[in-house]
Amino acid sequence: MKLNDLVYRKSEWLKGEGPKSNIAISTRVRVARNVKGHIYFNRAGDRQREETLDTVVSALKKSGFFKNALFLRVKDVSELDRTFLVERHLMSREHMRQFEHKALVVDESEIVSVMLNEEDHIRLQVIQSGFNITETWRIVDDIDTDLGRYLSFDYSGRFGYLTSCPTNTGTGLRASVMLHLPALAMTGQIDNVFDAISKLGLTMRGFYGEGTEALGDFFQISNQFTLGHSEMDILYNLERVINKIVLREEATREDLLKRKREEISDRIFRSYGTLKSARIITSDETIKLLSSIRLGVDLGLIKDINMARISEVLLFTQPAHLQKINNKELSPYERDIKRADLLRQKLVGD
Amino acid sequence: MKLNDLVYRKSEWLKGEGPKSNIAISTRVRVARNVKGHIYFNRAGDRQREETLDTVVSALKKSGFFKNALFLRVKDVSELDRTFLVERHLMSREHMRQFEHKALVVDESEIVSVMLNEEDHIRLQVIQSGFNITETWRIVDDIDTDLGRYLSFDYSGRFGYLTSCPTNTGTGLRASVMLHLPALAMTGQIDNVFDAISKLGLTMRGFYGEGTEALGDFFQISNQFTLGHSEMDILYNLERVINKIVLREEATREDLLKRKREEISDRIFRSYGTLKSARIITSDETIKLLSSIRLGVDLGLIKDINMARISEVLLFTQPAHLQKINNKELSPYERDIKRADLLRQKLVGD
Repeated sequence: MKLNDLVYRKSEWLKGEGPKSNIAISTRVRVARNVKGHIYFNRAGDRQREETLDTVVSALKKSGFFKNALFLRVKDVSELDRTFLVERHLMSREHMRQFEHKALVVDESEIVSVMLNEEDHIRLQVIQSGFNITETWRIVDDIDTDLGRYLSFDYSGRFGYLTSCPTNTGTGLRASVMLHLPALAMTGQIDNVFDAISKLGLTMRGFYGEGTEALGDFFQISNQFTLGHSEMDILYNLERVINKIVLREEATREDLLKRKREEISDRIFRSYGTLKSARIITSDETIKLLSSIRLGVDLGLIKDINMARISEVLLFTQPAHLQKINNKELSPYERDIKRADLLRQKLVGD
Repeated sequence: MKLNDLVYRKSEWLKGEGPKSNIAISTRVRVARNVKGHIYFNRAGDRQREETLDTVVSALKKSGFFKNALFLRVKDVSELDRTFLVERHLMSREHMRQFEHKALVVDESEIVSVMLNEEDHIRLQVIQSGFNITETWRIVDDIDTDLGRYLSFDYSGRFGYLTSCPTNTGTGLRASVMLHLPALAMTGQIDNVFDAISKLGLTMRGFYGEGTEALGDFFQISNQFTLGHSEMDILYNLERVINKIVLREEATREDLLKRKREEISDRIFRSYGTLKSARIITSDETIKLLSSIRLGVDLGLIKDINMARISEVLLFTQPAHLQKINNKELSPYERDIKRADLLRQKLVGD
């Protein structure tokens, strides 16, 4: 597989399928692992970092999970392509910024990705469309077990898996669900949700992960603690809380439709009108407006477009995707014009 | 003619026809006259006011210009209908607010209207679509001359026509042109225009006349002085200045289209998209957005709608027109919904 094979493909994280996909965009589970006997990335010298890379890559190549996978040295990837991979949620922003001695492996289905020499030697991630914690975890666990056949991980009987940063020690597990919560945001209930989840050991991140802002009422909720709980406890707690949030969002949507039908329709159709009309539009505005359309489709107000099309547009209007599709680098101003062109083509064209 | 005959008719002031109608909406000329021997309205008692009304009405009925005209006692007209007449620029807001002992006469073509017992005994107004000062004045002058056959006006050899307020004394003439100046507004040149016209004895008024705000880049420019100049001098000065403003607006539109085509298109098509999509919309927002569409049609960017349709929509989305069309009184909230319905019907329907 080559990187450019991904360009016109739907990204798993924006497929718009799977359980509760009207509200839950995608589920992501990752584990952090380090290879026994290898110095941790931060402390290692250049040669040691390269040795770790070689060791892990050869283990991955032995595993049946990475047949036909994409193996990339991050330093060999152009800045545009690195951003493209971040937009597909296949690697972190940190991994793209400091790209020496780092690698990325993506399986053929784009569900599994592995960052090598990010903060830890191995960051194994599985992403699935919709709300699907158990299934997503099962895949992570299977691959992790398989890799354990070829690699020995740093593990302490007392702490569990050892990691570069203590916030990951123990399970090394971070599970997160990207939720679309326009009704809770509109009615101001979202602040209560944040208060509640932080008391339950969960945390909220933005559209592009840690340290980024929430955009268009998309909120990423994940476990805060990795230590002192089993994997199953962590996942069960997350699932239980997300279930409650999803139910509350659904109830609030119905209630809004009953009590404020005109206002909601006005907001949704104005957003739709703007997306179909604009000649210059930023990425942020696009996400915000598409968020409205998504709600409109779920509420049955918008009937001439489906969730899959919205997801496609949400993916392809991102800056790097737009440039990959147009086959050249574009200035922010040129992108804003091309983005508007694409939106009209995808939303008015058929 | 009955008042309700006007409802579905295009108002002369928003017909969108005539010379330079891409920029000049309408031309209005009025003269103020008082009847010799009758006490001025402010000072008169009830009986004297009624006597003046009788005298003027019988003169108008003798004139050939008011065959089949609409004769209304303002006090007999509902508040909704009074607002409706103000929206059609057939009478002033003052005339509708203090409605005792007042009358309004509108000729069959809706070009000529006469307010009786407004500030002066007679306010004779002629309104024409487009930029048409000479023709409009000619009609006023003809009617004024004709009325002089049946009435004697208060006239002083030294001052000219005498009026209730000294700002009208002399010619009693107020000529104004409603201009649509989005390009001058967008480029900030409009402030220079205001500075210049005030030095030239002209003044700027809002969308609904004296004391109202400019809306949607529609500006009403009229002469400030009525004394010390002949009618022809006043009209020639106004025509000369308006001509310059129109030329400058045209040049700026062309320039914007050359240098900022994307930005202008973006603004125009977003406005169009919003008008075709909104479910709740105020009158002010409608005027602002229609202003953009008007520019878009003139620049050839919008091709699926014409000026006449824009004028029709601008007229019929006004609060009282909307209620007349719907045949009932509506709350502001209900109007905002009905207005959005009408916009979609008129802009998307065909």
